[in-house]
Amino acid sequence: MVPNWITQRAMMSPHRTALRFEGEAWTYEQLNEISQHYARKLATLGIERGSRIAIYAPSTSSIIHMMLACMQLQCEMVLLNLRLSPYELAYQIDDAKVDAILTDDTLCEKLPETTVAVYRFTAIESTAETSLQMDDTWDEQATMTIMYTSGTTGFPKGVRQTVGNHVAVATASLYNTGLRDDDAWLCTMPLFHISGFSMLVKCLVQGVRLDLYQKFDEAVVATELINGTVTHMSAVAVTLERLLTELEARDAVVSPKFQMILAGGGPVPESYLLRGFERGIQTAQTYGMTETSSQVATLSSKDALRKIGSAGQPLFFNHLRIDGAQKPGDVGEICVKSAQVTPGYIGRFAEHQSTTEGWLHTGDVGYLDDEGYLYVVDRRSDLIISGGENIYPAEIENVLAAHPAIKEVGVCGLDSDEWGQVPAAFIVAKNEAQCAELEAYCNERLAHYKVPKSFHIVKQLPRNGSNKLMRRYLKDLL
Amino acid sequence: MVPNWITQRAMMSPHRTALRFEGEAWTYEQLNEISQHYARKLATLGIERGSRIAIYAPSTSSIIHMMLACMQLQCEMVLLNLRLSPYELAYQIDDAKVDAILTDDTLCEKLPETTVAVYRFTAIESTAETSLQMDDTWDEQATMTIMYTSGTTGFPKGVRQTVGNHVAVATASLYNTGLRDDDAWLCTMPLFHISGFSMLVKCLVQGVRLDLYQKFDEAVVATELINGTVTHMSAVAVTLERLLTELEARDAVVSPKFQMILAGGGPVPESYLLRGFERGIQTAQTYGMTETSSQVATLSSKDALRKIGSAGQPLFFNHLRIDGAQKPGDVGEICVKSAQVTPGYIGRFAEHQSTTEGWLHTGDVGYLDDEGYLYVVDRRSDLIISGGENIYPAEIENVLAAHPAIKEVGVCGLDSDEWGQVPAAFIVAKNEAQCAELEAYCNERLAHYKVPKSFHIVKQLPRNGSNKLMRRYLKDLL
Repeated sequence: MVPNWITQRAMMSPHRTALRFEGEAWTYEQLNEISQHYARKLATLGIERGSRIAIYAPSTSSIIHMMLACMQLQCEMVLLNLRLSPYELAYQIDDAKVDAILTDDTLCEKLPETTVAVYRFTAIESTAETSLQMDDTWDEQATMTIMYTSGTTGFPKGVRQTVGNHVAVATASLYNTGLRDDDAWLCTMPLFHISGFSMLVKCLVQGVRLDLYQKFDEAVVATELINGTVTHMSAVAVTLERLLTELEARDAVVSPKFQMILAGGGPVPESYLLRGFERGIQTAQTYGMTETSSQVATLSSKDALRKIGSAGQPLFFNHLRIDGAQKPGDVGEICVKSAQVTPGYIGRFAEHQSTTEGWLHTGDVGYLDDEGYLYVVDRRSDLIISGGENIYPAEIENVLAAHPAIKEVGVCGLDSDEWGQVPAAFIVAKNEAQCAELEAYCNERLAHYKVPKSFHIVKQLPRNGSNKLMRRYLKDLL
Repeated sequence: MVPNWITQRAMMSPHRTALRFEGEAWTYEQLNEISQHYARKLATLGIERGSRIAIYAPSTSSIIHMMLACMQLQCEMVLLNLRLSPYELAYQIDDAKVDAILTDDTLCEKLPETTVAVYRFTAIESTAETSLQMDDTWDEQATMTIMYTSGTTGFPKGVRQTVGNHVAVATASLYNTGLRDDDAWLCTMPLFHISGFSMLVKCLVQGVRLDLYQKFDEAVVATELINGTVTHMSAVAVTLERLLTELEARDAVVSPKFQMILAGGGPVPESYLLRGFERGIQTAQTYGMTETSSQVATLSSKDALRKIGSAGQPLFFNHLRIDGAQKPGDVGEICVKSAQVTPGYIGRFAEHQSTTEGWLHTGDVGYLDDEGYLYVVDRRSDLIISGGENIYPAEIENVLAAHPAIKEVGVCGLDSDEWGQVPAAFIVAKNEAQCAELEAYCNERLAHYKVPKSFHIVKQLPRNGSNKLMRRYLKDLL
């Protein structure tokens, strides 16, 4: 049992600014009032405790208000990625068996046809309120969010994150980064991702300010950092690089009030860390995933150069071990045990266990050094990380394999200066296959970032003795 | 499951100073090594996981080393108050059924005769080590400490505090006071009290420094605060007043590096807060008890004058309610629900439930205002707080009632400039009773601070309709 974050925050720091977006600002007291106001409207629409509600909207103050209303009602929120294709949206809506979909008016047309009730934000606004008292406490075990992540099976899995999971992250982060009254987080990460949502939670629970942006704009971010209006932000390698280039172009350093950038979603090149230092930026490399509700290990800035390439030590209350490792340096699968780990999945994967004897097997490969610092050698062997988004080759292969012209297909990541990696498809054709047509086929069925940036017709795919596709040898075919 | 605080701290901040005492200092790495070294010696003496070990020693670095060794072994530590009489010590040792007693050499003679093994610190030092690997994780549900607190029955109760209870306090405190790398706590509170022990836990878990003193010396404390060598301390009204007088005598203000004094163990007079402000001291009034493993509510310094007399809002993750209250301002029994609340007692009270439907009924009387600030009207109706020590009238009455000259007895607190309150006994005599003899009788059986400072022979005691002693009317007999 934990407190209702919103009402408790409103009680403890009512007049502190909680949220800023596009020149507007809301205090904790105001967010509490607004969220209760929407909660009572949603209640009129039949939404109640335990309802499973999909949310499909960009990162504006409106989605925050709606998410907070859902928290007040103790709903389960299925956070839909804005980049999904209609096919993917339909899959997730169907798999999650949601009771309703809340959507921004601008995005309504992008939703696939569905029998589920769809409520536009403006329609909710004009709904009458039902009299309703909010609960002072929330159940730690209750699912708060569901985020789909593609697994090695090729079918996206709906990962549950409980109230307790999210609190555990906020607390671990607090032990790691400390807390000062004037802390403020700049959020340019999507709120449907664990990276963005966990930042919202952190701010609510810790009582600090969230400065929200719809998207990453290096000019705007650079100005915030130079002015010292925020103290922390998260970035992935691609956005960090754009920010550094912007600061370099302006020949500027950030304000001493700015504390650090948390860098996740894959490795950050050493050169970025050094360029950051020159601009007054401390960068903390992190390791985490949807299944751990965000970061479980973070490299503190003081160790950034001494332990270059490391994702740091486990955060307090988190345990890491390398499966099968006998001594420091032994490489194996990274396993995580902590209160941050998802209790499991929904939909077609509901029966799958997320942990074995309490340990989440991440599929990522790495080692711990003799001081307990984690080095990630390979993110889930075949995982492609493109601009901070995880792309699972199996999911793309699944789509392409259904095309009549294709006999076999393998997908891997190719290096990209702009995105870190981009997916590429290697195809054994049944008959004449037109790359342009395959691309169009993918575009219909996959989020744009998952569509292979190149298609290569080959004679055969590399396979091991038991005929398993060896994706790591695909690029040798080029 | 939580990490072994000591090994995880040693891994995360090995070279940070963990403890300072009488000119010596130990890093986290050193405390880890020393505690493992003693743990392996204690293991040779048959002490193991789950052993129940009494500790009887003053607040020096030695007791810290021994407590940490017991933590490494995952023992239950029964922390014996240094001010107990031999009778009281014998009661607690017997009630707790301890497996061994660890004691400072200087105190060994004060222990009552017992069949339990007594190990002096120097004897432990010269014991050989048993080979033993420390566990990386601890069970949250395991009892870490047991502290005796006198109940209304007159028999002291052994209150269990689990690993999880202590972590919950450290975390709640972190959300409340924030955390900076250069934080350091000055500890002059006894380590056998929850006030001192919880500070040790906080420092270990948060990775900040503890500056330990055997006792409160206002000259030494004032110098630390003026020099800014510590950032936080705890005090009770009596010690706060002595510190303020010292600072006033020196016409000094404390360093701006000094953050705040947490003031617990009963109400702090408004005049002290104002005198503190003049010396650059922010004081945060707190409310908590042994059964809640320390503070559950704290008045932030920014509210100190606006909400004078209040113990503040519940810390994040803590819930307070006033039994039977219909609206803000209604007075009733203060109830607490949180991960900090003891799971229960040991010994003769092992079967007693500590909570009802998850709520601890504190016996204290108070109200919440319309902003959720707690006002404590009466600490357990009859409780006497003398220099920060809780004294239960029933316990003293129990002792005196056994005296042959006494027919009836009632004890209450009288105001004292020096101690806040002191106990006074009101006696209906069977036959001639000599006050000096009664005092000697109490001195044999009770800790000195519990011995009534005055004895009053009266004709009858105030009683209500059902003949229950009305202790609050005793002082009217003067």
